[in-house]
Amino acid sequence: MPDSQQLTPDGQLKHLLTLDGLPSRILTQILDTAETFMDVGERDVKKVPLLRGKAIFNLFFEASTRTRTTFDIAAKRLSADVVTLNIAASAQSKGETVLDTIANLSAMHADMFIVRHSQSGAAHFIARHVAPHIAVVNAGDGRHAHPTQGLLDVFTIRRYKGAFHNLRVAIIGDILHSRVARSQIHALTTLGVPEVRVIAPRTLLPAGVEQMGVHVFHDMKAGLKDVDVIIMLRLQNERMKGALLPSAQEYFKQYGLTAEKLALAKPDAIVMHPGPMNRGVEIDSEVADGVQSVILKQVTYGIAVRMAVMSILLGPTAS
Amino acid sequence: MPDSQQLTPDGQLKHLLTLDGLPSRILTQILDTAETFMDVGERDVKKVPLLRGKAIFNLFFEASTRTRTTFDIAAKRLSADVVTLNIAASAQSKGETVLDTIANLSAMHADMFIVRHSQSGAAHFIARHVAPHIAVVNAGDGRHAHPTQGLLDVFTIRRYKGAFHNLRVAIIGDILHSRVARSQIHALTTLGVPEVRVIAPRTLLPAGVEQMGVHVFHDMKAGLKDVDVIIMLRLQNERMKGALLPSAQEYFKQYGLTAEKLALAKPDAIVMHPGPMNRGVEIDSEVADGVQSVILKQVTYGIAVRMAVMSILLGPTAS
Amino acid sequence: MPDSQQLTPDGQLKHLLTLDGLPSRILTQILDTAETFMDVGERDVKKVPLLRGKAIFNLFFEASTRTRTTFDIAAKRLSADVVTLNIAASAQSKGETVLDTIANLSAMHADMFIVRHSQSGAAHFIARHVAPHIAVVNAGDGRHAHPTQGLLDVFTIRRYKGAFHNLRVAIIGDILHSRVARSQIHALTTLGVPEVRVIAPRTLLPAGVEQMGVHVFHDMKAGLKDVDVIIMLRLQNERMKGALLPSAQEYFKQYGLTAEKLALAKPDAIVMHPGPMNRGVEIDSEVADGVQSVILKQVTYGIAVRMAVMSILLGPTAS
Repeated sequence: MPDSQQLTPDGQLKHLLTLDGLPSRILTQILDTAETFMDVGERDVKKVPLLRGKAIFNLFFEASTRTRTTFDIAAKRLSADVVTLNIAASAQSKGETVLDTIANLSAMHADMFIVRHSQSGAAHFIARHVAPHIAVVNAGDGRHAHPTQGLLDVFTIRRYKGAFHNLRVAIIGDILHSRVARSQIHALTTLGVPEVRVIAPRTLLPAGVEQMGVHVFHDMKAGLKDVDVIIMLRLQNERMKGALLPSAQEYFKQYGLTAEKLALAKPDAIVMHPGPMNRGVEIDSEVADGVQSVILKQVTYGIAVRMAVMSILLGPTAS
Repeated sequence: MPDSQQLTPDGQLKHLLTLDGLPSRILTQILDTAETFMDVGERDVKKVPLLRGKAIFNLFFEASTRTRTTFDIAAKRLSADVVTLNIAASAQSKGETVLDTIANLSAMHADMFIVRHSQSGAAHFIARHVAPHIAVVNAGDGRHAHPTQGLLDVFTIRRYKGAFHNLRVAIIGDILHSRVARSQIHALTTLGVPEVRVIAPRTLLPAGVEQMGVHVFHDMKAGLKDVDVIIMLRLQNERMKGALLPSAQEYFKQYGLTAEKLALAKPDAIVMHPGPMNRGVEIDSEVADGVQSVILKQVTYGIAVRMAVMSILLGPTAS
Repeated sequence: MPDSQQLTPDGQLKHLLTLDGLPSRILTQILDTAETFMDVGERDVKKVPLLRGKAIFNLFFEASTRTRTTFDIAAKRLSADVVTLNIAASAQSKGETVLDTIANLSAMHADMFIVRHSQSGAAHFIARHVAPHIAVVNAGDGRHAHPTQGLLDVFTIRRYKGAFHNLRVAIIGDILHSRVARSQIHALTTLGVPEVRVIAPRTLLPAGVEQMGVHVFHDMKAGLKDVDVIIMLRLQNERMKGALLPSAQEYFKQYGLTAEKLALAKPDAIVMHPGPMNRGVEIDSEVADGVQSVILKQVTYGIAVRMAVMSILLGPTAS
């Protein structure tokens, strides 16, 4: 059953809000389109005129230089006009509601909103209220979803492993608070990865996580055994200071990815991380910078994947 | 008598600083030019090459996301290069004078300064000191003027009412502190609106307001009777906390626009607001979102009007 | 001996980090290229397509509106895409290292980093770690260097004086803390200025400054005698409050440039200042705005010089 909010009645993508329920057909369309953009970043003139004259608004209700920059670059490579609004510091302080802000920007003939918000559901809420011609892309909402991150992760896996049907993937760390993990799990299971594992202490796992179709491990030794892909999650500073964890040192000892633990995985396993990394907390520098790490490739691929999402939503072939 | 500061000796617009004294001929030129830009926002490629290679500087000495964004978009639709400087946080803190900042930016071959400042007269002051080829647009100075807002308001009225000579227009709220109201009154009277009313408590009216050619009312019932256009003003938070008003609730009861009060106006009266709105303070949501509201159209038209001002000041036909 | 970090093995510029050790041949190449850009700012369409599709990242670890703006404008006049990151306020606060930030931005296919940092050596450090195709420009690092400022200063001198071999140049003020002065001294001596003087109180001179090839004066009367070029330095506010100086008034009396002191120089001497000026502290307004002042010309030339640096590093002729 397609998610009626992000798909048109004839099954085309109209918003990108979550990977939960997004059909494999759409995921594959995005990955295939991203492949066609892979060479743009290598060209002398790193630009295609696909979205010339389109108005894309970066609405960041929560600060994020890295994600904002990748969307900014992706939009510029498509020749779109980008306007960035850091909303916390502006209209909100004048007491205007989010919906009035959105209605005003829509009235300026916006074509797309890239939305980052600390509250889960914010992008869905905005998508429900925009004019029909405007596309909304969720760039991270609370603990809920970060679909372009999930997409660039499966794009990376496909590039390195060729297919999904024969893989064992482990996601390690703070699953509980991670919108990235949720998006990864949805994408991996939809694309047919037969075994998705999560490895985390009990305090960093959401209740009923098994219902997402994953295998739960609390121990790295068992969890990393024979996996093809290792995805480390960022441990946020506020967790380290809280009661959920004994200490950063203790966490590293148990769940930090070292060369020794990496040796438990398949010899050709790849190591991924959404960034920014806490070196020495969730990952050892030797591994982060090692030959099995594809962490910087994820960043490069992220531009192509975001270009793909934008061009599918707004391009000449968009319905 | 033309304002020699914003008109050339042969009567062409060289700066847009205030609508006070701006001849009807120029106002009409701007409105007519704005009409020619109305379709740009609807196009697939929302761009015209009119100001390609022009350097437009957004100088915001006072924060304003909304106004900055509309000028930014208008400039990009004209293909100009835009540089935004939030000056409070930069050179000013190093003790440089405003004139030195302006002289420096001029030396970078600026073509236009869009100036927002909390002090009345700031844009005039800057216009007096720029090189002859540079145009200055006042984007709001203290309590003094906000000419592009006044222009987009009369543009909206002309679009909905066709002409000015047979209209009754009411402006309601904090006239005392409103640069928007001043600009509206100048534009409406110059364009020949025979009856402009202001409706406000005595504490929110400037002394001698009648000399601007308006009729003063303190009561909504009398003031709204048979008007064609209702313009609500934003009640700024700082006023609500001050001694000028009893309370936001009390203000809404007396001056807030409700469906009941709106019924006093002509049946085809339009409702306007410069934004951002305080719903439930100066306007009821039922009215703000109702069929007579043209509030979001004002935002759309604001882009075309700002494109018109910029292209008249800098375009190939500029003297 | 060429600086192997900023030159390729065959002696072409690959980064611009410092003017210390940069051969006269390269300095002259930059000045000559800047001459070819001098008319771009005067054109109706102030743009050349030289760097279309190139991605230039402004990395400002230290705030600087003025310098950031000049690089921004220079890049836009070359048709490059510019992304500005104010890093203090973003990734750094999430604990990511500078090198991880740089690695991530590199992975987004950056072509150039413009780096401003409060620590001396930051741009060198970054240049040592970027991928081979990425160019780094130092836009000011601690007390160390500000090479584009030094270049625009010698460009200005060459424009007004024609040659370097017969000049007497005085640099006045806070040499100790000034990266600008260091870059100026390196450029002037490399280009063959026979007599470079520094005039400053003992507390504002670095130890062993004579080894940079300059003549030291503590007195304006002796130091300004018969000079062709006077370069005033900005006295930073924090110095004025510190123990290094008696008071701003006392400093002005001894080292501030007045018409009276200017009369000691040659009659056709030019007066320069990197800005922003403290009028009445290091320079009198009468002099700053007088006929011998070329201070605003420096700003104009700064755009052409930065365009030259960028186009040499990234343009079609770049190795």
